[in-house]
This record gives sequence, structure tokens and C-alpha cells, in this order.
Amino acid sequence: MNDDQHRVPLDELRCRARRLQGHLREAGLGGALFVQNVDRYYFSGTMQGGFVVVPADGDPLVLVRRDPGRAAAESPLPVEPLASARDLAGRIRAALGEIPAPLGLELDVLPAAQVARFEKMLPGAAFGDASRPLALTRAVKSPWEVDRIRRAARTVADAVARIPDLLEPGMTELELAARVECELRLRGHGGLIRMRGFNQEIFYGHVITGPASAEPSFLDAPTGGAGLGPALAQGPGSQPIAPGVPVSVDLVGNHQGYLSDQTRPLCLGEPEEPFGRAFEAAVAIERAVVDAARPGVSAGDLYRVAVDAAADTGFGDRFMGAAQKVSFVGHGIGLEVDEYPFLARGFDLPLVEGMVFALEPKFVFPGRGAVGIEDTYRVTADGVERLTPSPQEMVIVPGR
Amino acid sequence: MNDDQHRVPLDELRCRARRLQGHLREAGLGGALFVQNVDRYYFSGTMQGGFVVVPADGDPLVLVRRDPGRAAAESPLPVEPLASARDLAGRIRAALGEIPAPLGLELDVLPAAQVARFEKMLPGAAFGDASRPLALTRAVKSPWEVDRIRRAARTVADAVARIPDLLEPGMTELELAARVECELRLRGHGGLIRMRGFNQEIFYGHVITGPASAEPSFLDAPTGGAGLGPALAQGPGSQPIAPGVPVSVDLVGNHQGYLSDQTRPLCLGEPEEPFGRAFEAAVAIERAVVDAARPGVSAGDLYRVAVDAAADTGFGDRFMGAAQKVSFVGHGIGLEVDEYPFLARGFDLPLVEGMVFALEPKFVFPGRGAVGIEDTYRVTADGVERLTPSPQEMVIVPGR
Repeated sequence: MNDDQHRVPLDELRCRARRLQGHLREAGLGGALFVQNVDRYYFSGTMQGGFVVVPADGDPLVLVRRDPGRAAAESPLPVEPLASARDLAGRIRAALGEIPAPLGLELDVLPAAQVARFEKMLPGAAFGDASRPLALTRAVKSPWEVDRIRRAARTVADAVARIPDLLEPGMTELELAARVECELRLRGHGGLIRMRGFNQEIFYGHVITGPASAEPSFLDAPTGGAGLGPALAQGPGSQPIAPGVPVSVDLVGNHQGYLSDQTRPLCLGEPEEPFGRAFEAAVAIERAVVDAARPGVSAGDLYRVAVDAAADTGFGDRFMGAAQKVSFVGHGIGLEVDEYPFLARGFDLPLVEGMVFALEPKFVFPGRGAVGIEDTYRVTADGVERLTPSPQEMVIVPGR
Repeated sequence: MNDDQHRVPLDELRCRARRLQGHLREAGLGGALFVQNVDRYYFSGTMQGGFVVVPADGDPLVLVRRDPGRAAAESPLPVEPLASARDLAGRIRAALGEIPAPLGLELDVLPAAQVARFEKMLPGAAFGDASRPLALTRAVKSPWEVDRIRRAARTVADAVARIPDLLEPGMTELELAARVECELRLRGHGGLIRMRGFNQEIFYGHVITGPASAEPSFLDAPTGGAGLGPALAQGPGSQPIAPGVPVSVDLVGNHQGYLSDQTRPLCLGEPEEPFGRAFEAAVAIERAVVDAARPGVSAGDLYRVAVDAAADTGFGDRFMGAAQKVSFVGHGIGLEVDEYPFLARGFDLPLVEGMVFALEPKFVFPGRGAVGIEDTYRVTADGVERLTPSPQEMVIVPGR
């Protein structure tokens, strides 16, 4: 049930709105209209259906069509019932005096047909793009948010610690994944993994091994996995887990909507080479990036640090993919898996205290397998802090 | 792995393109550009990243950026590698002579920023909306597609049949859901439940009971459930399963991307009233709609049949919600949960042989619970055929 402990505190919402307002003004926007579930939740504390309007100055307006009673129980802000979306213009004018101009929309996620609808519903309004002010705001997490990410990470660590007991000889990727997913769910994992990027989707993560784990996929990620077929073309499939070949256990935690991301390799017996050495190389790359990460350093420069460190390991041509490489080594994470900052080529955003990102140096060996590590970090005043508590080791499951 | 058995047959793809072309011409479109994963998969047999262009006359063009090798293995159509999205205009002109005009886009799902990108990438092109021609095409399923939906439904029936063994006294919704989800996954459930509607999302379905199951939610569905908190505000939560109060077991199957939808109530011991009578009423409503359903009958008229039948049961004011009602009793289903036809107020589309829809008459009793039934049907030459094989009964689990 929606216990009070899960309500977003009022101060939290006030602070988010204030930070957004700074970014809106910098972008020359008079306000923003939020429609997408996660964005409305972020600013209002409720995902119930409707609209949240944040003017560049003044208080947010929370209009809820379905269900306003539930929204009022969930949100510490005043919730105004909205009988029909047709009333939107009138209700904004009544509350704010006028439609903020230009009014930023979530153009990165709002379907074109919806934008056309807003152009009709708000005749004469001038529109802009709120995507970047929003991304910059959400990139910086409060201690309240970090606490939730930490709990998500703990859930995953606990489930991963159960794997040696769950794994049986001859199991397939899917059979292991099903059991790990159940462990996560029993510990309160929210199930859904929300991604902002169009066409991006993921189910829990990738529990994959052997040649299947080296298959490239449409997902913007270093590993994909064979999946179950062309319509489910990533993640676990029917590949059997064989001794000596690591299973990449890449799992996204979800505590109250907040996500963590962690990868550990697991191996039945000692890993064949080059998997053992490649894992150590991945750990070394992670350490190099961690040593360089602090407020003021550009996320793009950290990608460069990782690529340079990978070149030193001798596995550079296998780093972040083989034939198809991705051009990042990490991604911001919070309510969605793909938030700012991206530790990616050319992503020139300086780190700020409170940013949270997943760092995932991985190597792909076509026809053989994939191995790497991933942890979620918070940017502190003078460095970064690891939020994912599993030991940074390959889990060796003795043969039985 | 992507065994050949899961490849979409070539004839299947040819037939889909031909049917789409009819709808494109009716809509005055010269062709359509598909970008969304599911739509590209539907016309090409692969979800690998890129574009599928279907001209109103001629052969589809499948351009794949990531990963073309995998796409070629998955698709029976010729797959052309695309080095960069910037080459799109040139590649379309090279293959088709010109950019089809107007070129239909998936305006119902394509983010506005993406549409703006296409306007730049295809300068001078005239754009239109391909959403409805696409929805009309996808609404009618081939025997190959129905076979996959049938298998998804069988998976769910098998998992639901396990519930009496899985259910233990004192369990919460989430604890039961976690175990049922594991059973589904071990039987090859694809995990992801794709929805087309903006802001619509679901995780497996709703295993919910008691007062929580009567809570309205933002989801466009008769039941929502409390969920785990405001950011996960639907589906199972911490509500304990109590004797005499039904658990609504609403589960979406997923076999190779194709979905089924089924709801059965389950009760520890005999159900308290009015749940038993309300369930019988739901079964009667389903029967009334089934008796009326056949090619040529409007989907909107079937909604009317359901509402009239509900009025006769004495539970009309609890039908499809209490304070917040949804104005439909069924929805098309296939690769996405929310396809044409909608058995909804004013949805004036005549049924056609091969359409597949879920029919879900349900009653909501605020503060007490929800009960109903849901089955997935295929429209035949002269009626409908049920694809969800579970007995149409409340599952009574004897007290232990």
C-alpha cells in the first residue's frame, strides 16, 4: 500500500522545482508543462494521470484527471482535480494568470500527436523544449533520492548473493534469470525498468553467457544477449551455462521507482582465459575512471580516461563491443536508466555533486562471451562513492 | 537463441505489407516510414535498429544500422546495412526512386523531437500520419500470429493452474505475484509487456486483492491495484490475501512478443458475497458479448451490449470501475496490449475475421475488492473463438 514512508517529502519537491526554474530561465523558457509519468511524479510525488505545470517563477500547479483522490493522498502538494483535458488552458490561466511563454514541453518523449493536441488545447501559446532543463535538474540527486538508489542496489546485491544456491548444472540463462528475478521481486523490486530513449527497453537486465552474450543488439548497450527470439532480441535465452565461461549478471534494481545498475560475472569453476584477465582489466578501468571522477570533470573526459585505460590492457579492440561498439562507458541513472550524465564521447557536461551514474567497462569476445563489471556511483564533494555493495569480484561457483 | 522456428515467414511479411498498402492508399499516403521497434518487427521480422520504408506500391526497404548481421539472420527480407541515419534520404531515393509522398509517420508514438529530426533528414518531404493505416493492418491477425497468441495464453493457463500449490496462508499480493511470474518466465514468457499508449505501462498484469484491488489508478484499465508506492502505483503490493476475498489474477502472456490477456479470480475458501454473484454476472456479460460478436458488428456496439447486460445484473454501478469508470470492456491485442479494435464507447469499427481482442467485464467494490473475468478471443468467419484455455471459473483454494 502507499504508506506515508513512500511519499516524496514536500521540501524535496520544492527544491526540485526551484532547481528546474533556474534551468528554465537559463534556457529562456517561461515555464514547463509535464505530461510523462516519471516527470510528473518527480515534480509532484504522484504518477496519477494529468499535468504538472512549473512556471519559471512561482508554485507548481498539479492537475489530476485520474485519480485525483489517490493523487491527493500521494502528493504533499495541493492537487486540483481536472474534469477534462479540455479545461487545461482555463485552469492554467486561472492559477498562473497566463500560459507561461515560451512553455517548455518534453519534446524528447512526447509523441508528435500529443504535441499537436497541446497546440490545439493551448491556442496562441508559444512552445519550447524542456528536455534539457529537465535532464539537468534530474541529473542531480538529493540525499533522499540517493537513499532509494542505495536500497535498490542492496536488493540486487542480496539477490546476486543467492545465485550460488540457485544455480544448478545444465541451467540455461533463462532458468537462472527467472529465479533471480523472483528473488528480486520478493525483496520489493518494482519490476518495471523505465527508459527514456525512444525504442529503448529492458527487462530486469541481462543474465547472459557464452557466445549469446557476445551478440550485438539494437539496445544502446555494450552487451545484448540472444534473447528468446527476434521479437525479444536481448537478455537471457536458451544458452546453457557452461563451466569456465562467465555469466554476465547485469541487473537493474528498482526500489520505489529508483534504479541502480550493477554487473558481476559469475562462473561455474575457474574462468577460461581470457575471461579472468579481461575481468581484471575491467576492474582496472573502473578504478581509473573512479580516480579521475570529481565535481568539475567533464563526463566526456571520463569516457576518454576509460578508453585510454582499456588500450593499456591489451583488450582495447574488445572494449564496449567488438564489431559494434557503443561510444560510452557509463550513464546517469535515477527514475530512468538513461539519465544525464552520459560518460560518452563528446558529452561535455561537468560532474556536479549529487549526480549518480553507472559505470560499466565491459569486453566482448565474439563467439566466446562477454565479461566486465558495473557499479553505480554518487558524485561527492571531492570524488565519488560506490552505491552498489557487492564485492568487486568474479563470483566463482564451485563445480558440483 | 534465435532459432529458425521463430523467424517470421516471408509470406507472412508480404501479406502484411500488401494489407498495409491498401490502407495507405485509402488514407492518401504514398508510403510509410516505420521507426518504432514493434512496427519494424511487424513488417521486417527483425527488431534490430533502423528503418523500414513501405511504399504504397512496391517492396519494403529494410535499412539496419545496428546490428545488420543479426537482422539479416532474423529477417527473410533483404536487409541493407545503413552506416548512418544521415544516409536515410539517399538510400530511400536509391531504392525507390523518390521519397514516397506524403510519407506516413507513426505520429501516435514517435517523439516530437524525432519527427523534427526526420523533417531535417528528409528535406522537402511531405509527411502524413500512418498511425491509423498501421493500426487497421495490425488489428487483423494471420493464423501464424494467432498460433503465437494461443501459446502465450497456454503459458498463462499453465502458470495459473500452479497457483493452488504456490499460495500459502498469509501471503501478500507481491509474494504470490513473484512466484507466478517465475512460473511464467520458466515457461518462456518474454517478460516485457509492450503498450502503445503514451504513459501506459504494465508489469505482467495485476495480481491484486481486497481493498487494494478496488483502488483506481492512472492506468486506462478497470482495476489498478495499490502497487508498491506512488512511483509504482499499480499491480501487486503488500495487501495480504485473506480468506473469502477474491484475488484478481490478471496476467498478460508473452510468447515471442505476442501477447494474450486473461483474468480469473482466485479465492481462499468460498467467496464472501457479493463476489460470487458478481463473478457469475461477469461471466454472463462475457457470454452476451460473445453471442453478439461476429464479423460486421461494430466494436462500439459490443461495448453497448456489455453495458446493457451489466445493467441487468444489478451491479451496473460497479461495472468497469466505481467512482472512476473506464469506457471500454475490451481491447485488441497482439504485439501490444492496446491494439485495435477497442470495445469502447463510440469506437465504430466493424469486426473483421482474424481480429483478436481481450474481453474483460469486471466489477469494482470500493473498500472491499474487485472481481471479473477476462478472455482473449479471435474473430472467426461467423463468431468468435476463445484462445485462453483456463476454465471459466473462480479458482477456489481450500483452506489449509
